[in-house]
Order: sequence, then structure tokens, then C-alpha cells
Amino acid sequence: MMKTQLVAALDIGGTNVRFGLVDAAGAIHTHRSLKTSDFPEPEELVEKLSATIKETLYDLGDAYTLVGVGVGAPNGNYYKGTIEFAPNLKWYGVVPLAKMFEEKLRVTTVLTNDANAAAIGEMMFGGAKDMKNFLFITLGTGLGSGIVVNGQVLYGHDGFAGELGHVIIFPDGRLCACGRKGCAERYCSVTGLKQTYLELLKREDPSIDPEKEAERVDGQYIYEKAMEGDALALETFTYTGEILGLSLANAVAFTSPQAIFLFGGLVNSGDLIFRPTRESFERNLLNIYKGKIKILPSLLKEDEAAILGAASLVWKELEIKSAMIP
Amino acid sequence: MMKTQLVAALDIGGTNVRFGLVDAAGAIHTHRSLKTSDFPEPEELVEKLSATIKETLYDLGDAYTLVGVGVGAPNGNYYKGTIEFAPNLKWYGVVPLAKMFEEKLRVTTVLTNDANAAAIGEMMFGGAKDMKNFLFITLGTGLGSGIVVNGQVLYGHDGFAGELGHVIIFPDGRLCACGRKGCAERYCSVTGLKQTYLELLKREDPSIDPEKEAERVDGQYIYEKAMEGDALALETFTYTGEILGLSLANAVAFTSPQAIFLFGGLVNSGDLIFRPTRESFERNLLNIYKGKIKILPSLLKEDEAAILGAASLVWKELEIKSAMIP
Repeated sequence: MMKTQLVAALDIGGTNVRFGLVDAAGAIHTHRSLKTSDFPEPEELVEKLSATIKETLYDLGDAYTLVGVGVGAPNGNYYKGTIEFAPNLKWYGVVPLAKMFEEKLRVTTVLTNDANAAAIGEMMFGGAKDMKNFLFITLGTGLGSGIVVNGQVLYGHDGFAGELGHVIIFPDGRLCACGRKGCAERYCSVTGLKQTYLELLKREDPSIDPEKEAERVDGQYIYEKAMEGDALALETFTYTGEILGLSLANAVAFTSPQAIFLFGGLVNSGDLIFRPTRESFERNLLNIYKGKIKILPSLLKEDEAAILGAASLVWKELEIKSAMIP
Repeated sequence: MMKTQLVAALDIGGTNVRFGLVDAAGAIHTHRSLKTSDFPEPEELVEKLSATIKETLYDLGDAYTLVGVGVGAPNGNYYKGTIEFAPNLKWYGVVPLAKMFEEKLRVTTVLTNDANAAAIGEMMFGGAKDMKNFLFITLGTGLGSGIVVNGQVLYGHDGFAGELGHVIIFPDGRLCACGRKGCAERYCSVTGLKQTYLELLKREDPSIDPEKEAERVDGQYIYEKAMEGDALALETFTYTGEILGLSLANAVAFTSPQAIFLFGGLVNSGDLIFRPTRESFERNLLNIYKGKIKILPSLLKEDEAAILGAASLVWKELEIKSAMIP
């Protein structure tokens, strides 16, 4: 009997660790969430998840077999299988997570950052099925990115390629958490949207206290205001799209992609963000690229993308390996 | 008898067409230059060069054989073998140059832009022999670039990837020949160096006429002034290196290269340009990249780089083809 092959997919974030068992067609057979803070040491997480994976497979029965573990994690290094000095995680230094899972479960473990993983997910199960050159951009708390070239994620010399959120757009711009100024993610993210709105509020009424306003304002609030026609909220989206369009036009001059997929909280605002982004993008593109490149919403569901992305890492790796066998 | 294989290498520029026969070790067996303006139609150039190649091979005798033609040309499209709307050439529209040479000479013809060709030259015959991920930057009249990822030039979806000179550094900056504002090449090139110097002259003495000064000022003049310790000339180099370092730091966030090679007129200024560039580069790099990436002068000779690059295109292509034969 042919067993159904499954991949254990993990998405490790600062708040939650999500876990799923995913087959080659992208069906998610089980889906759970754990609190990251329950695992002060990475060994504890590996122990707990390995046990969970084994139990779940036992319950599924003989018709299923585990072929790999895929991990999306902040500061994930694809080449080394390590998480390196991730600022949102409490784990110190360089954590050899892939090796730890391989020792426990004796299957191939592939690890990279969440945006790279989701980019492969888009290629295997989303809107990039027929594409070999595209960008995948996440617009959430920050701006994450995965760059696909010739059907492969671009990892670069050290495994850390594709940090478009930390391209400096304004040399003397907003202070970024990375310690530098004017990074794209300070403008093009839910956090950036909020900061822009607060700056515009302050411009209109210099007496307000932005820190106090910050407590009641979030992305959803600005979205609702904009949908009601509030001028400041609309200006906030226009400005955000303006900078995002410029950032993406600059990105095109590097890898000349066929399309750019947008994913994450900001994208749920639909035309409010897509219209100004596309306008600015076309205006800021070099002539040879104009009219050629689509900016599209990701077709991955928001609550599944991380798991599907992590699983795709392994499916892609197995596809590459089987292609290498003559 | 084993014949020595030769590649006909062409470098097509706005002023000159350079031609050489190059062997697999990078030795140039003949080297000539023609005036581009002598060939108002591309057919005339193909006719003339095909005849020259045949005559030269005849003169070299039986010990040599032609295996391919490599062409470096502005707006060269690697996938299609075409030159498309090149602004410095008088040839109109899309010129299928590779096909034209293949019909005349019946050998593989490979074409791309000059910076991509030189990047492969650096990998085969220069300082990038052991590297698989690097950037190659030409700093001449403009800023050209070739991006190498996993040992291959990055061409992107349409063959036009790697236009780092047209990344917008200052959204409201200097007007560029491409019609947009603030492109990197308006600052980081011999042309940019000159414009910066003239702006600084005007700042010091508002009565001067920059257009008149432009006639006597060139890169060599500013270099000599700087070597004499002239404050404005030194400031010009510092400013140019500052912007170049920022541009290169931003570029790293895309492809995470092992090294960046600088080539062309501006690079001959040595430490005057390298010191401020490296300082700005390290300062503007995201933490995860700091201290890892070298900025190096190209090891290709200035008068040979274009020919060696164009030849390398073919040698690389033949290497790929022979690797594919089981």
C-alpha cells in the first residue's frame, strides 16, 4: 500500500508556535498552536513537538508516513538550519534547530525565515504556480520578503538574502528597530501605517499627544476611518502606498520579477493600499520594466500561509532531491 | 591534433566596437577597435565583423577553431539575444544581433549587457574565481551592474535584472537621463562626481557659471585637485563614496553577496573613493551583514574587461552545456 507522505510544518513566532501536518497537495491534516513563552529553551520545544508529531502520526495510523520537518522562523538560516540571534525570541545566540529535530525524528529538516517559506508556499499552493521569478512581501508588524529567482528562493552567500524591509528609503528618515534610519518597514507595514496616521494627526492638531493617541489607534481603526471617508486616514493609505510603490519599483531593478505578491495585515485593506501602491510603482519604474509587472494579493489564506510555507520548504527540497537522481 | 578553441568577443559601445579572439584561458589572440558610427545599420556591422572573424581565423591557421560569439552591448537581452532600444546606439528598436551572427558564422552566440558580461569575466578570469555570490559594479559615465547568484548571472523574468544604477536613492534628487529623479548613477559615477564638484563650487562661489566650469572640469581634474589636497575635491569624493556606500548597503539586503567588485573610471581614484565608500557601506549595513562583505577593486584590466567579459559569456555557456551532457 502506498502511504500518504506528510511533512511536519512549524511556524515559530514571538508569540505562538504553530504546527501542522501537511500533505503534498497542501491539505493540512492537523493544526495546533502553542505559546512560544512556554518554551524558555529550544530543547523543550523540540522535545514537546517531537512527541506531539509522533503521537499525531500514531493516531493517524498506518496509511501515513513522515518525510520531513519544515520550519519557518525569524532569522532562520537555510544553509545552516539555525536560528541566529532572533530579536523576538528569548533563545540566546545560534540555535541549531534543524539538527535538533533531525536527531529526534530522523527525517530531513529544512529551515528558513517565514517570508522565504511563504514565498515557496505561494509557488507550490498559491498564485505563483507558473512563475519562476517573483517577490513575496509580507506587510504586518514589519515588512518581510522572499525573493524567488529561477524557481528557487534567493538565499545569498550566507543564507540571509531578501531583507527588503531594511532597505533604506529615506537616509534621514524614521528610526528603525534595527538601529538605522529610514528603513522601508518603518513606512510600509501596519506599524508604519499607524505612525504615519499619528504624524498626520499631530500635523492637523499640534496639541495632541501621539503617545496617548497610539493606545487607541491600530490598523483596523485607520482602515475603518478611511472606509468612512476620513481625509487623514485616506491620506495615510495614499502615503503608505506611495512609499511601498517606490520600494517595490527599486526592488524590480535588482531581480526583474514577473509579479509581486503582497501578504499580511495591511493587504486586507484592499484597494485602499493596492491603488496608491500600483500608481506609485508604475510611476517610479524604470522604462524597460513599465507595464510588465503585476502587483497581486497573495492567494494563501492568512491563517494557513505560515504552515503551508513551512511545509513547502520540505516538498520543494524533496522535489529538488528527486530531480537530482538520474 | 586538438585545435585551440577560440571565442569571438565583441563589446559594442556608443563610440567604439571592440573585437577580440579569446581562448579558454583568457588569452586575447587579436584585439581591434572599430567606430560604431561607421555602421548606421546593424547588418553592416555583422557583415563586417563576420568577415573580419573569418579572415583572422584563416590567418591564424589550422590549429584554431571558432566555438562561439559573445557580445556585450547596452540593453542586451540575454534570453532573446537582442539589443532593445539602446539609448546610445543609432540602431532603431529591437535588433536580433545573436541570430544575425549565428546565421553568418553558425556558432552559438550569447549576448547580454556589458556589466553582466564583465561580471562573468571577473568570475572566470578575475578576482571572483572562487565566488558564487557577488556584485560587479561599473563606475564610468553611468553606474552599471551585474549580479551573480549561485554562480549564475541574475537575468530575471525578462533578461533585464541588475539595473542598480537606476535604483532611486533620493526620491526628489537629481534628474536622471531615464526621466526619473534621484537614481544612484546620478551620484555614483564619473558624471555624478563631476556634478557634485560643480554643485560644491557653486555653493562656495554663487557667482560662477556651472555650465562654463563644466567645460574644463572632468574626473581626472577632480582627482588631481583631490591629490593636491583641495578641500572641495576631497569633499566631492567623500560625498560620492557616502552615497555609493549607502547604495551598496541597500543592494546587500537583496542578494547578500560575498563581495562587491568595483570597476571603471572612478575606481582608478583608489583610496579617495574606496575609503569613504567602505566607511559608509559598513555604517549603513543591517547588523546581520556587518563585517562580512568585502568591497574590492576588479582584477580585470580596464582595456581588456569588456572583451574578456564578452568571451566569458560563451565559455560559461559552453561549461553549462557540457555539464548538462550526462
